Amino acid sequence: MSLKKLLEKKSEVLWQENIPHISIDCAVFGFHESSLKVLLTKLKDQPLWSLPGGYMSKEEDLKEAAGRILNERTGAEDIYLQQFKVFAKVNRSEGFFEEFDNSLWHKQRFISIGFYALVAYTDVVPVVDEFSDGCEWVDINALPEMMMDHREIFDKALVTLRRQLNYKPIGDKLLPEEFTMPELQKLYEIILDKKLNRGNFYRKMIGYDILDKLDEPRKGGAHKAPNLYKFNAEKYTTALKNGLKEGW
Amino acid sequence: MSLKKLLEKKSEVLWQENIPHISIDCAVFGFHESSLKVLLTKLKDQPLWSLPGGYMSKEEDLKEAAGRILNERTGAEDIYLQQFKVFAKVNRSEGFFEEFDNSLWHKQRFISIGFYALVAYTDVVPVVDEFSDGCEWVDINALPEMMMDHREIFDKALVTLRRQLNYKPIGDKLLPEEFTMPELQKLYEIILDKKLNRGNFYRKMIGYDILDKLDEPRKGGAHKAPNLYKFNAEKYTTALKNGLKEGW
Repeated sequence: MSLKKLLEKKSEVLWQENIPHISIDCAVFGFHESSLKVLLTKLKDQPLWSLPGGYMSKEEDLKEAAGRILNERTGAEDIYLQQFKVFAKVNRSEGFFEEFDNSLWHKQRFISIGFYALVAYTDVVPVVDEFSDGCEWVDINALPEMMMDHREIFDKALVTLRRQLNYKPIGDKLLPEEFTMPELQKLYEIILDKKLNRGNFYRKMIGYDILDKLDEPRKGGAHKAPNLYKFNAEKYTTALKNGLKEGW
Repeated sequence: MSLKKLLEKKSEVLWQENIPHISIDCAVFGFHESSLKVLLTKLKDQPLWSLPGGYMSKEEDLKEAAGRILNERTGAEDIYLQQFKVFAKVNRSEGFFEEFDNSLWHKQRFISIGFYALVAYTDVVPVVDEFSDGCEWVDINALPEMMMDHREIFDKALVTLRRQLNYKPIGDKLLPEEFTMPELQKLYEIILDKKLNRGNFYRKMIGYDILDKLDEPRKGGAHKAPNLYKFNAEKYTTALKNGLKEGW
């Protein structure tokens, strides 16, 4: 079925079930093989990619709606979510769905509430739903052209991540439970978009007193086995409350 | 006219002109006589106070709408505004306007977009509009009981201010153009909700290199005339881009 036919068919139910004019768009971040990735989808019959999104039902809280939308897209439960900005330019969907009738659900003016989500990469199985013909992880340094203002939403999500690095458990949510110091440094470098000095990074991180060093180094590989760390949940939570003190 | 009658009379026009389900609520901060104040209003015939708010017309951008709402309340132009969070609990207006008919504009479920605003206290002339019987500055340490979730919105606004103190020109917007170091310190202490050491505060502030010291101290008063400072707009803007480096 074409996208147009499908949206027409769904329109009435969407009007019945959801709060009009409000949409949710999510920048879902995952860290894999030393690169930060974002989950993108592509609507059927459309050339451009988009952030996964959806609507808020009349009985849902906002965060509940965002969680449900992402669960449907990723299979993951209890995803770490933060709303960060509302995108509401009058003309943000101008030129989009132009061929549709004005009574169509999708033709409304939507005020979109932006969330960022942090997931363990391996917890996610991208789902291509009935409206899409693609859903996949894309390296944040190789983003395709995106529809409407979705690139702006993504950019703002990344800037927010950067600002919140000292206040939110971003490392903990993106890294696997056990990780090496170079892996943690790489994540910080990508989010901050700058190279960090290895010695300084190590000293600062140890200085925060939020990591536990494991007794056993990582096994396998030709090189000297690197030390493994994990976040100390209690200390990390306490430290984030006042913000980690130093900038990078 | 009673509030009920007035709202019934206005309802149709509100439906015609505005985007349903979306409201804007603003925590407007002003600094006066060493205390941080917030602007509160009180609906006619209602016992509780509220943050000033309003709706978004069908042709308005979000920030434009917030600016208009505050201009109507304060007479001030070009108010410094930052959206900070959406408040959207399903039951947030439960029990409110219970006696009204469901077709009334005010009986909808509203998703409220929270803004904080920073104004020069003396620029504002609080306006009591036709829906209200009060609009005044209140010390943030002496807030009255507030309606719906407005206390939660205020609390979140203040926490956001605290978090953004190193990223946004908060001092510049709240202080008069020329100020003394003790006045700046007092503002920081109130926002951060803690006492700061005077010598350390002075050293840090000077270290940021964002202030210009004026040639002439403040005149009048029995004591030694204190030095006056103002923000160096260019240096302050540059410094905030990466965030002032140290925490307090």
